[in-house]
Amino acid sequence: METVVVNEVGPRDGLQNESAQVTPGDRAELIRRLVATGIPAVEVASFVSPKAVPKMAGADEVVAALDLDAADFSALVPNMKGYEMARAAGARAVAVVLSATDTMNRKNINMDLTTTLRVCSEILEQARRDGISGRAYVSVAVTCPFEGRVPEFRVLDLTRRMFAAGAFEVTIADTIGAANPSQVKELFTALVEEFGARRLAAHFHDTRALALANAWQALECGIRKFDSSIGGLGGCPFAPGAAGNLATEDLVSLLHQAGFHTGIDLEALLEVVTHVRSLVGHDVGGRTLPWLRSRHAAA
Amino acid sequence: METVVVNEVGPRDGLQNESAQVTPGDRAELIRRLVATGIPAVEVASFVSPKAVPKMAGADEVVAALDLDAADFSALVPNMKGYEMARAAGARAVAVVLSATDTMNRKNINMDLTTTLRVCSEILEQARRDGISGRAYVSVAVTCPFEGRVPEFRVLDLTRRMFAAGAFEVTIADTIGAANPSQVKELFTALVEEFGARRLAAHFHDTRALALANAWQALECGIRKFDSSIGGLGGCPFAPGAAGNLATEDLVSLLHQAGFHTGIDLEALLEVVTHVRSLVGHDVGGRTLPWLRSRHAAA
Repeated sequence: METVVVNEVGPRDGLQNESAQVTPGDRAELIRRLVATGIPAVEVASFVSPKAVPKMAGADEVVAALDLDAADFSALVPNMKGYEMARAAGARAVAVVLSATDTMNRKNINMDLTTTLRVCSEILEQARRDGISGRAYVSVAVTCPFEGRVPEFRVLDLTRRMFAAGAFEVTIADTIGAANPSQVKELFTALVEEFGARRLAAHFHDTRALALANAWQALECGIRKFDSSIGGLGGCPFAPGAAGNLATEDLVSLLHQAGFHTGIDLEALLEVVTHVRSLVGHDVGGRTLPWLRSRHAAA
Repeated sequence: METVVVNEVGPRDGLQNESAQVTPGDRAELIRRLVATGIPAVEVASFVSPKAVPKMAGADEVVAALDLDAADFSALVPNMKGYEMARAAGARAVAVVLSATDTMNRKNINMDLTTTLRVCSEILEQARRDGISGRAYVSVAVTCPFEGRVPEFRVLDLTRRMFAAGAFEVTIADTIGAANPSQVKELFTALVEEFGARRLAAHFHDTRALALANAWQALECGIRKFDSSIGGLGGCPFAPGAAGNLATEDLVSLLHQAGFHTGIDLEALLEVVTHVRSLVGHDVGGRTLPWLRSRHAAA
């Protein structure tokens, strides 16, 4: 049985996009509950200015509250200052985010693509010197909301640069959920051919109800590591135009049915979905949740 | 641009499983609206005993109300009596249903597998003599609710027999929506290898939110004809344990994004979804509907 690694991003990518303000203590508790289900990797925080992203305030408190041996915990860092804060907090893995287009980088972190590339490279190089695992996201890797379709050669080039700067792993992100499995096949086939599947990961959003089909296609291309978000946090899949993450329960359900090992207890995961509802104050849950609940109720 | 044929089954497989009783006149009107969107093929009726399946009463009235040149209309026939009725009504295409397991055939039409095979073969042979296009369904082709996992060799064998009896086309149906893309890949690869993709079609249900991933995998295997149901009629995808069909709007949305031609106007299809709501008296709609509606509202 082949193993697929699930990287849970709900506590960061999910909660950052929710209207509820969840305290660092509650975020750490959520992470502990997620890890208790068997999830091996969690994106736990973002070391950004609390003025710019108030939802992520207290990233150091979240990291300090965790048993860092319990799972592969990573933290997002937008710049060298964020990196220094993450290191000071004790983070063992950091991730930089490089958007594939100039406009998206400006909108996201107020830097052009060339500057972002330089900053990301510097952080990755510093992380390597510090013995911290450095990862990179290439975001809006298929379609940018401002510049439209992103050419494949650019994603390949940026991925190449991130590896060259010392990235341990590069995650290719369909940040706005605009990709279809045909595009995923083309892009990931080229990526796997050049870099091998082992150091690549995929991040999908379910805006167009294609996240599972895209994940399946990426699996077919050999990808064995995926981001997902408990309950699809980060946007409700049923709301018009919502851009929620691929729900962890949807991904794990697909993986188990298709014969992959994840180490995750799906029934325990459903209890965390219920817990997440109480944290964010509204209904959450992936597309498979009704079926999963009825199956476990019948069991 | 490659063409994929969508066979709309909402007026039969969909409405048969709804609690609302829709009159033959309203069913014919629904079919006309579907065809007006560009849908090339519709399963319009089932020639069964109205005592056994009251929802399908008036199949002959539905067929009589249609312009038979407008699209490829087919009717389900469970036995020779049903076939004779369909022929008398003027049907140009009929479909027989052969469940892959003994128990499912008994539960579905009160005949064992051997008897069903004989009856289906007789109907297909008679249809050929009559110049009527005969199709066959191999249903519960992946998992049977009574007998569990169905062995691949049996589906291959039954498909072989249906072609030998004169079937023009065989549709492989995951009737309860229990298949995953890994199983779809294995089964359809074997089917396409033996029979070629051109005379095969696929029928998926969305019980586990995998219908689109399964459809994508079948496309990858070369399948170019799919059943789907407007609004996902035949069970709400959001209800626990529901077994709705793959929604036509979900399928067409996937196909258009992935670069296939269907001839279907997706925006017009959304209006038919609204019409279907008024027919069945409750909310319907595939998983992509919120996104599709927001996109067309923004356009």
